[in-house]
Amino acid sequence: MTRGRYREFCQCDNPAMTRGRYREFCQCDNPAMTRGRYRGFYQCDFDIAGQYDTMIPDAECLKIVHEILSALELGDFHIKVNDRRILDGMFAVCGVPDDKFRTICSTVDKLDKMLWEDVKKEMVVEKGLSEEAADQIGAYVSMQGGMDLAERLLQDPKMSQSKQACAGLSDIKLLFSYLQLFQVTDKVVFDLSLARGLDYYTGVIYEAVLTQAGVAPVSNDTQNGSEERVSVGSVAGGGRYDGLVGMFDPKGRKVPCVGVSIGIERIFSIMEQKAEASAEKVRTTEVQVMVVSAQKNLLEERLRLVTELWNAGVKAEMMYKKNPKLLSQLHHCEESGIPLVAILGEQELKDGVVKLRVVATREEVDVPRDDVISEIRRRTSQA
Amino acid sequence: MTRGRYREFCQCDNPAMTRGRYREFCQCDNPAMTRGRYRGFYQCDFDIAGQYDTMIPDAECLKIVHEILSALELGDFHIKVNDRRILDGMFAVCGVPDDKFRTICSTVDKLDKMLWEDVKKEMVVEKGLSEEAADQIGAYVSMQGGMDLAERLLQDPKMSQSKQACAGLSDIKLLFSYLQLFQVTDKVVFDLSLARGLDYYTGVIYEAVLTQAGVAPVSNDTQNGSEERVSVGSVAGGGRYDGLVGMFDPKGRKVPCVGVSIGIERIFSIMEQKAEASAEKVRTTEVQVMVVSAQKNLLEERLRLVTELWNAGVKAEMMYKKNPKLLSQLHHCEESGIPLVAILGEQELKDGVVKLRVVATREEVDVPRDDVISEIRRRTSQA
Repeated sequence: MTRGRYREFCQCDNPAMTRGRYREFCQCDNPAMTRGRYRGFYQCDFDIAGQYDTMIPDAECLKIVHEILSALELGDFHIKVNDRRILDGMFAVCGVPDDKFRTICSTVDKLDKMLWEDVKKEMVVEKGLSEEAADQIGAYVSMQGGMDLAERLLQDPKMSQSKQACAGLSDIKLLFSYLQLFQVTDKVVFDLSLARGLDYYTGVIYEAVLTQAGVAPVSNDTQNGSEERVSVGSVAGGGRYDGLVGMFDPKGRKVPCVGVSIGIERIFSIMEQKAEASAEKVRTTEVQVMVVSAQKNLLEERLRLVTELWNAGVKAEMMYKKNPKLLSQLHHCEESGIPLVAILGEQELKDGVVKLRVVATREEVDVPRDDVISEIRRRTSQA
Repeated sequence: MTRGRYREFCQCDNPAMTRGRYREFCQCDNPAMTRGRYRGFYQCDFDIAGQYDTMIPDAECLKIVHEILSALELGDFHIKVNDRRILDGMFAVCGVPDDKFRTICSTVDKLDKMLWEDVKKEMVVEKGLSEEAADQIGAYVSMQGGMDLAERLLQDPKMSQSKQACAGLSDIKLLFSYLQLFQVTDKVVFDLSLARGLDYYTGVIYEAVLTQAGVAPVSNDTQNGSEERVSVGSVAGGGRYDGLVGMFDPKGRKVPCVGVSIGIERIFSIMEQKAEASAEKVRTTEVQVMVVSAQKNLLEERLRLVTELWNAGVKAEMMYKKNPKLLSQLHHCEESGIPLVAILGEQELKDGVVKLRVVATREEVDVPRDDVISEIRRRTSQA
């Protein structure tokens, strides 16, 4: 259903990229993407289905996106909010003919990739809209704000003529009152240019955008060049879709829904970019400690220690080899970001100790065998 | 590939049950299964792929099954272990013709559901095996033990004639030496009757079985009646399959694998049975506290408190209604097993407190508003 939308984001010839919605993620100057990874498509969705009171679940979705993007520490972000009814009402009062709502809406949706002049040109030249109507739309879609903007537009002589727009604006006001209680208004912007191309949205729509400089922009539109709009692209989006589920019910029962999709692959790619830039290793495992042997014939000792660690709930690993080389064991820790190494050698066994090695600093310390679990716990709880 | 195997476990006519491997779980006197739940099929797999030293990954699979089944507290269990090479060697030395190995093996596999007399009858009457061969098999498949049994069979005049069997028996010995270090030999039994019908196994095979009485047996074989064999059926199984992955590689490269599947649906069903028997509620959510209002017009207060709780990392929930009834809010907590309720009413707001209610005991206590997070943390960390 959503496949069409993403196609336009990528003009590359990589055949692997033409399957499914993956094109959004295909930024051809992004080497991580051309290495052929991520050929499948994953996103992480959160939806609330059911008949509830206005804007309460809608606000919770925004709270959740705020929480996720804050916790991931991807840098600054904002979440744009609009309402399908405000868009439709706006088109009506600006004089867009009914049968052109959809196509004009999809042109508005390109404002995050194109300058207004080009968007206007597409409306007028390609889609046959009057210049006057286009200019009126242009005035509205440049507006951004919060509850105050919704209040102002409810008083707007033109906008207030549309019942639909007024319903949407009242709901945006209510939404912002809940967002204040949720303490997330610092990141949420009511943005009239947010259109989202999907037909199934019936009310509020969202889009979360990372705004931090520092991270390479993923938009491949270079002719834009406007420096105010530093955006690394959308990392989450969603909205209310009250009609969609009912379409699939033979009895046509309505199931109102609101939800949001987190673009986890794009987020992973950004996290990897950041990690590469800072020369940090991305952890691919939760293993806290690797049990290694310094000489041959210590498999039993390794098995004994790894069992103790496992039984104590420590995440531990060892190589499935009888006599692995010390260097290859240490190399594995560095490769996969395992922070600690527990080294067993003949000397350590004689002394009744385990040599704990911190992978990052290569610092080594002998710990009495009986204290090794508490010492590993102490060190991993600090990290 | 494995579909065929499970079919024989169920003779019911429920069409929903005929899709896929679900039949293993279709125990028609089990009401949980006939309510039409679990129409899909889930299992939880753990596999180790790659060329490693003999029996080290094989032993870790058993350690993991032991850990999982112990942690789930489903009651007593044991894990049967055998080796495909021991089975094949045994068939050879007992005089089973080469072309009958497979079919005789699948008959042996029925020993957990049928008496030996019936198994023997199937071998001799249906499958044309000599009675002498069948009796020799019968003597072997009644054997159970540990490392000692493997040692004994290596000295067995007949068994030791088979190179294959000896290779399997030596590996079982090695496996048990690792299992001793992993501290799991209390639950692992070397059982020569374990066959597992799947052709792709090439080495060690496993099957974990719950043995606790108290839980209704899921075997629908009532003619067995032997009381020593109280088993509630298999909850995990697996083995080594060194040839399977290579079959799908165009270049035929071998990828040795060993793995185990945990039958999570069967386990869930057993857990639900146990919970029903003890009148306990099965938690369907991790929510620690529900924020509820005692009167109307307290939505904002609920939103404020739930935000504080969320921001403090407490798992909290509230109803998406402006004015939900107190009773329906409390009922929801009881239904879904939420242990605590934070009640906001006009009196509580006036007094600067939150009323904390323990769902299980219905005990209520007023907590100063500023202490509510620490009090909730204190109470949920005890649980």
